[in-house]
Amino acid sequence: MNCFPESLEKLIAELSKLPGVGPKTAQRLAFHILEQKNNGAERLASALVTAAEKLDECPVCFHIAEEGHCALCDDDSRDNSVICVVESPRDVLPIERSGSFHGRYHILGGLLSPMDGIGPTELHIRELLKRLENEEVKEVILATGSNVEGEATAAYLADLLKPLGLVVTRIAQGMPVGGDLEYIDEITLAKALAGRREF
Amino acid sequence: MNCFPESLEKLIAELSKLPGVGPKTAQRLAFHILEQKNNGAERLASALVTAAEKLDECPVCFHIAEEGHCALCDDDSRDNSVICVVESPRDVLPIERSGSFHGRYHILGGLLSPMDGIGPTELHIRELLKRLENEEVKEVILATGSNVEGEATAAYLADLLKPLGLVVTRIAQGMPVGGDLEYIDEITLAKALAGRREF
Repeated sequence: MNCFPESLEKLIAELSKLPGVGPKTAQRLAFHILEQKNNGAERLASALVTAAEKLDECPVCFHIAEEGHCALCDDDSRDNSVICVVESPRDVLPIERSGSFHGRYHILGGLLSPMDGIGPTELHIRELLKRLENEEVKEVILATGSNVEGEATAAYLADLLKPLGLVVTRIAQGMPVGGDLEYIDEITLAKALAGRREF
Repeated sequence: MNCFPESLEKLIAELSKLPGVGPKTAQRLAFHILEQKNNGAERLASALVTAAEKLDECPVCFHIAEEGHCALCDDDSRDNSVICVVESPRDVLPIERSGSFHGRYHILGGLLSPMDGIGPTELHIRELLKRLENEEVKEVILATGSNVEGEATAAYLADLLKPLGLVVTRIAQGMPVGGDLEYIDEITLAKALAGRREF
């Protein structure tokens, strides 16, 4: 069924590699991009190349950075005494959006997953320990996800960090805001009950 | 909330312009592309640039072509006596996939839509008439969609082409295969009844 020219088929094949994009969506995206006015394809292409060339890891917290330290490590107004530990750079934005955290971050670069061969040495844990030695940190917030790997990683880090005399906290589990009791799963509800606080 | 470097924000902004891609999906796509091994970003970028540079319209049927005629116009094994008229290049693939058509195509490049200022001169109708003069065509199949503009365009073309002594046909409307009577809308059912054929 070769009714498109090669360069179009190749573009569709590349777009099909994106997450959640099947061959039909890839075709729709390709047509949309090529039909855009003002060199839409070239603009997207140059944004891709520039990002791939410029982006690197922050040497301190492993967040995405362009050159040297990331914007968050460079920001002098942030609180140096708290470090929030997350799995990946994409976890930083939702926490920033919540407006409830003004400390520093540390990106692990993954979660412990023995099945996939990811042990403590594959994550930026050594670098976290070095930061805790050199910086005056009072609290480490473990903000990995609430899945099996997230919990295991948080538990591993808690065991590792508590002997250092730090306050080690874990983000709360419970009802999502706006959630109906009727529709919530029983494990979440059990966590919400266990984590209940006095009114 | 500027916690990403500029080049990443720019890539996310470009990806957000894609159809069905909001800011969150754009962020997910950007991270996925940048995390890909083997220069994924560069490969996608070069596919975009190559496609944008090479792709053009077939001078005969206005399908997408790389240089000169499209693969379908170049294919000598196809039936020259039938032309299937469709709205856009993306309509060719589903018809080819059906395996029920082996003639030529003609892409209108849109549908009549007076509200959007698209009249007959904005579509490749003049070129269709010229083809019908020069080629030995016996049947024109009007395969525009079953929406208001598709129906209006088909009706306009039927009025235009019938006086030329051609067989002018319209693709059938009715129950989609696998459809349940219970769930089908009443207009489709009315069309299915009106278009009933003897068993």
